[in-house]
Amino acid sequence: MKQATNTHYQHLTEKLEEISYLNGVMSTIGWDQEVMMPSGAANARAKQISSLAGVIHERLTDAALGDCLTVLEQTGLDTFDVRQRCNIQEAKRNFDLDTKVPKKLVMAIAELSSKANTAWVTARQENKFSDFAPYLKQFLALKKEWAQCVFPDKDIYDANIDLFERGTSSAEITPIFERLKSELIPLIRTIQAAPFQPDTSFLQGTFPVDKQEALARKISQDIGFNFDHGRMDISVHPFCGGSHPTDVRITTRYKESDFIESLYAVIHETGHGLYEQGRMPGHQDLPVSESLTMGIHESQSLFWERMIAQGQPFCSHYFETIRAAFPDHLRHATPDSFYRAINTCKPDFIRVEADELTYPLHVILRYEIEKGLFDGTMSVDDLPEIWDSMMMKYLGIKPPTDTLGVLQDSHWSGGAFGYFPSYTLGAIYACQFYNTLLKESPDSEQNIATGNFKPIKRWLNERIHSQGRLYTPQELVLRVTGEALNPDYFINYLKAKYTAIYQLS
Amino acid sequence: MKQATNTHYQHLTEKLEEISYLNGVMSTIGWDQEVMMPSGAANARAKQISSLAGVIHERLTDAALGDCLTVLEQTGLDTFDVRQRCNIQEAKRNFDLDTKVPKKLVMAIAELSSKANTAWVTARQENKFSDFAPYLKQFLALKKEWAQCVFPDKDIYDANIDLFERGTSSAEITPIFERLKSELIPLIRTIQAAPFQPDTSFLQGTFPVDKQEALARKISQDIGFNFDHGRMDISVHPFCGGSHPTDVRITTRYKESDFIESLYAVIHETGHGLYEQGRMPGHQDLPVSESLTMGIHESQSLFWERMIAQGQPFCSHYFETIRAAFPDHLRHATPDSFYRAINTCKPDFIRVEADELTYPLHVILRYEIEKGLFDGTMSVDDLPEIWDSMMMKYLGIKPPTDTLGVLQDSHWSGGAFGYFPSYTLGAIYACQFYNTLLKESPDSEQNIATGNFKPIKRWLNERIHSQGRLYTPQELVLRVTGEALNPDYFINYLKAKYTAIYQLS
Repeated sequence: MKQATNTHYQHLTEKLEEISYLNGVMSTIGWDQEVMMPSGAANARAKQISSLAGVIHERLTDAALGDCLTVLEQTGLDTFDVRQRCNIQEAKRNFDLDTKVPKKLVMAIAELSSKANTAWVTARQENKFSDFAPYLKQFLALKKEWAQCVFPDKDIYDANIDLFERGTSSAEITPIFERLKSELIPLIRTIQAAPFQPDTSFLQGTFPVDKQEALARKISQDIGFNFDHGRMDISVHPFCGGSHPTDVRITTRYKESDFIESLYAVIHETGHGLYEQGRMPGHQDLPVSESLTMGIHESQSLFWERMIAQGQPFCSHYFETIRAAFPDHLRHATPDSFYRAINTCKPDFIRVEADELTYPLHVILRYEIEKGLFDGTMSVDDLPEIWDSMMMKYLGIKPPTDTLGVLQDSHWSGGAFGYFPSYTLGAIYACQFYNTLLKESPDSEQNIATGNFKPIKRWLNERIHSQGRLYTPQELVLRVTGEALNPDYFINYLKAKYTAIYQLS
Repeated sequence: MKQATNTHYQHLTEKLEEISYLNGVMSTIGWDQEVMMPSGAANARAKQISSLAGVIHERLTDAALGDCLTVLEQTGLDTFDVRQRCNIQEAKRNFDLDTKVPKKLVMAIAELSSKANTAWVTARQENKFSDFAPYLKQFLALKKEWAQCVFPDKDIYDANIDLFERGTSSAEITPIFERLKSELIPLIRTIQAAPFQPDTSFLQGTFPVDKQEALARKISQDIGFNFDHGRMDISVHPFCGGSHPTDVRITTRYKESDFIESLYAVIHETGHGLYEQGRMPGHQDLPVSESLTMGIHESQSLFWERMIAQGQPFCSHYFETIRAAFPDHLRHATPDSFYRAINTCKPDFIRVEADELTYPLHVILRYEIEKGLFDGTMSVDDLPEIWDSMMMKYLGIKPPTDTLGVLQDSHWSGGAFGYFPSYTLGAIYACQFYNTLLKESPDSEQNIATGNFKPIKRWLNERIHSQGRLYTPQELVLRVTGEALNPDYFINYLKAKYTAIYQLS
């Protein structure tokens, strides 16, 4: 690399590192707001966040950054190694995303987000979709305008998806989701009609929060979460935040009546946390090490939550530990009955409470609605009716209110269209990754059954976490598993698992 | 006010508010570092803080801010009301402080701070003053240079004092400290020789941390700390931080062997916290509402810790509550014996552990050394010897090591010269304020004895907290108490109190 090029690249990384540090600060105060901030500080915090966001936006759209990128691109990207090239390309993509949208539109979206969220909260409380509908319409119009600015060559819904699941389009998603529908809908029906239903009575009762907390912390640590580089706290909604790979913060919430929820939320967030803690060593402050997409992130949380912790080897390893925490309740349970009890399937109204079998149908319903709204085949005013009829078709139930139906999620009120598919893409990725792991290391389930999670964590660190943004998700899944994203693994896994649990054959 | 002036003033407040919000963010991540941050995140956090500090420095020294201030000053300050005038003057002072120092000097001081702190930590561990001495010499040279840049008309030590205790000079401090010496040294000697020594045996034992925490929280809340606008947590050294008057965060530390330390640290920090929570309503994001000086801030913490919580009415009100928390230890104690036990006087080596009677002598010793170093009558290399001989003269004891002597405080290793006097000025202010309170509201001690702290908190809110920076400390003490700072109140208080406790007459 020539000296001048070297200097330009160094300027770029200094700018990118500063942005990364300031984002770390933003992330810390965001965590603080959810976990620590006293209730009366909300107004002041909003102003602090807005000021810092202004500073970060200044840095992201700094003309000097743009000039630097132009010079580096003109030099020719083949002058750089793969990591450097990735940093330049990522910086360019972000710079474009941040500068191609006119300020007026940015402000209109920000203002609408704030208003629409307030309107959604009230509409949901009052079960009045018609009060939220006008905001949804405005959002669709603004998001169309936005898409034309940033990705003029893309279909509008695809442009929105690209923000969360880059390189993935509805042309790829639709056939996958169609397959899931054709397989899962009949399976769920069969399960509902099955004569055998697992006993879950021992999961009901009162489970002291301090025992839940100790259990969750132990298992998170066993799996590999590094508490020298992270924390575990309480928040209203579980999440994984923090400011840096050396400062990863997971949260959960505790209900005295349910220890499964807090425990599996911790395992889920630990999966996200391991991704963050495992980012590419030596490059942790640069874009090349950042997590790839929402779907890949979700694949890491679901890998641990579902593929491992909802599996038989895990249940058999931890059963005695869990029974020791709650001896009265689990006195007559067994590893097998515990495994069955945490893996029941029951169609219900709320996505975030859904089991792994019904969850994809909640996602597909939203995907089809978003697609319909953007291509004009559905209209906002018809959504409650569309929602209910799709719920009947996919899950055989009809929500009694819009609060339990079309108004349940916050995503649309913040303008996040195209986000939902990532949840189910994550589940499919997770299953395909797990399948490869079993092929490459046939002793993995034996390791899980003896609590030896190190080789699995190492495998994920090497194959996924440390790869950052070097590859597209499509390239990554091919590199890791030897084939393109393939929903068969997920479908076969669900069919085999639930056929056994519900004694269907 | 003319339209153009109005516009300029509005620009100024927008800039000042942005700085205030960003400082709030900085303060939150500073708190997080002490209270929450995982140990392995220190490097990343240092970079985050440095990036944010760079942004804040940019804002503070923004040429547009300077231009705005010039225009406003040329307009004539009498165009503005007192609060507006104060904002302009404070902004001007800060702008000058931040821009009058050449960048080279700023960087040299920052670099030396970092190195000197590391050197101090090691020198202190190894009891080797000579390893720290070169850094101290460099600091003195740089701080002289700094003083000539920012306050060219001031004596150099006075310039350093001004940073913490503006408007207060050694010409004012020296006679006050001389009076304290002449009164307190003989009093301490007398106490040491007194035949009666209070029983403190019931303060020794094991005091469960959860009981300590509950007790401290209750008393902090009783006094008036608003937990909707604040928090209480644990840190290595107790402090009062937070990001805003609606987000004030106090900390303490717990030892199982000593509940007095944690409890009185919480009361002390609550005093600081009440100052912050009580800042001028409607102006909380502007300089006019900021706390006045270190000495006035300390007066508020010591007002509650010493004037109130170490007094008889407070001890009599809370004795049963405290005994209920630790019934085994306090079984045979009484409100009076408790009061005496927490008010013993014993010369010792460490300033931060000193009682209220010996504390001023620790401060005066440091003040005289700083003065001597800046006026050239003392040299760095002689400090250990000077320190020890002054300790003998003032407190009758000689530290066995420099670690317990001249190396004990962190202040000089960070370049904070002129800070120490504020601690004792704060104690004198506190006593004079308390005396005025008793004169104006003779039922105050009756209120304390019944746990009714509201009128006292209101009085401090009105007279001090909400006055922000409208007056100099000299003006404030005159307005509140009707006279200038007068050490007689403090001296008379100490004499009367300790004469009674030690049965000296």
